[in-house]
Amino acid sequence: MEIRALVFDVFGTVVDWRSGVAREVRRQLPGVDAEAFADAWRGRYVPSMDRVRRGEQPWTSLDDLHRASLDELLAEFGVPGVPADARAELVLAWHRLTPWPDSVAGLTRLKERYVIASLSNGNVALLVDMAKHGGLPWDTVLSAELFGHYKPDPEVYDGAARLLGLPPERVLMVAAHTSDLAAARARGLRTAYVHRPAEHGPAATPPPGADPEADVSVASLTELATRLSA
Amino acid sequence: MEIRALVFDVFGTVVDWRSGVAREVRRQLPGVDAEAFADAWRGRYVPSMDRVRRGEQPWTSLDDLHRASLDELLAEFGVPGVPADARAELVLAWHRLTPWPDSVAGLTRLKERYVIASLSNGNVALLVDMAKHGGLPWDTVLSAELFGHYKPDPEVYDGAARLLGLPPERVLMVAAHTSDLAAARARGLRTAYVHRPAEHGPAATPPPGADPEADVSVASLTELATRLSA
Repeated sequence: MEIRALVFDVFGTVVDWRSGVAREVRRQLPGVDAEAFADAWRGRYVPSMDRVRRGEQPWTSLDDLHRASLDELLAEFGVPGVPADARAELVLAWHRLTPWPDSVAGLTRLKERYVIASLSNGNVALLVDMAKHGGLPWDTVLSAELFGHYKPDPEVYDGAARLLGLPPERVLMVAAHTSDLAAARARGLRTAYVHRPAEHGPAATPPPGADPEADVSVASLTELATRLSA
Repeated sequence: MEIRALVFDVFGTVVDWRSGVAREVRRQLPGVDAEAFADAWRGRYVPSMDRVRRGEQPWTSLDDLHRASLDELLAEFGVPGVPADARAELVLAWHRLTPWPDSVAGLTRLKERYVIASLSNGNVALLVDMAKHGGLPWDTVLSAELFGHYKPDPEVYDGAARLLGLPPERVLMVAAHTSDLAAARARGLRTAYVHRPAEHGPAATPPPGADPEADVSVASLTELATRLSA
């Protein structure tokens, strides 16, 4: 079966969350170690979604999860008295992340030949803002929010194929995280791994250079376009 | 409150369904009055959705409603022996409709200043195909399918504002049909009427030139862009 649609993880795969969040932290919270704050905030991402995934908390958008973990982190980092509007701007930093240098060029080429959509845990409004900010040329935004389930719940991958009107084997999931790809593969999607060694900063252990379980492993979205003849 | 997002009815407002469907009818069903067939097919649109809206039928995508009414119409028009692949191509005609001459230019200008999204009873796959076919530059595709309700059910308008992360008064519904606008207004959205006198063909009674209840009435999406300083 020929691939018809590509769905993309966004944070880390298409955009650089770490430097974008750190930039806003420097602006709003002078004196705070901005990269450490960004890492700690991202560190709360999976645990906060897992509470929703386990049913311990009703559906909560990623914006609202980000806001709750920000309030906790400000206490943990000992930053008192941050006003509501500065907290709101910090949460909006996740809407204004910068694409990796190859992302817009790669997506633009892939869009000529395939349907391209986000498939992110970010809420729809976040993803729409991000696409406008960074020039991401999605055919449409697909989000965990549409399914009331966070990745890696199967409902997200199944729902994406259903909304695109395609059997799962005609949909290629593109991500920089092998766990996301493994969950997509378990639902019958095809998978492409993108190596993003800078995602967690220069001091972090780099991710694997390739995913042997994926249909294809690449170092950029432009390389993916070339591999898929787009 | 400033308008932040525009959501668009699609069939008749952004694209010309009648000539696109008639074109495919001529190709697949030689000898059939193509415009009469297109009109009759569209005539079954509201009754077929109303069965879903009244709960007499579970959620059914517009593609599937189109397919069921096509089967009925072929019998009614006395066209026997149309093979499955020709029926499938006829249903796909609704995915490949041509934009009105001002649509792409108007949307492209509006996108510079606003979030622009479809808000159509067409299913997501139909709207994605149509956008690629016609070059409609949506920021994202919003569809009745995402809410499990067809317009004019309130869930569709409420759901669009919720997914866009906006209060309804910051969302402008754009449509060529006063009933759609009235339903949007009842949910707190702002409204723009587009006069599309050619929608139902030259022999039909033309729609009103303006909607006195709407915030603005225009004759094209380029005029809408000008009125909204885009």
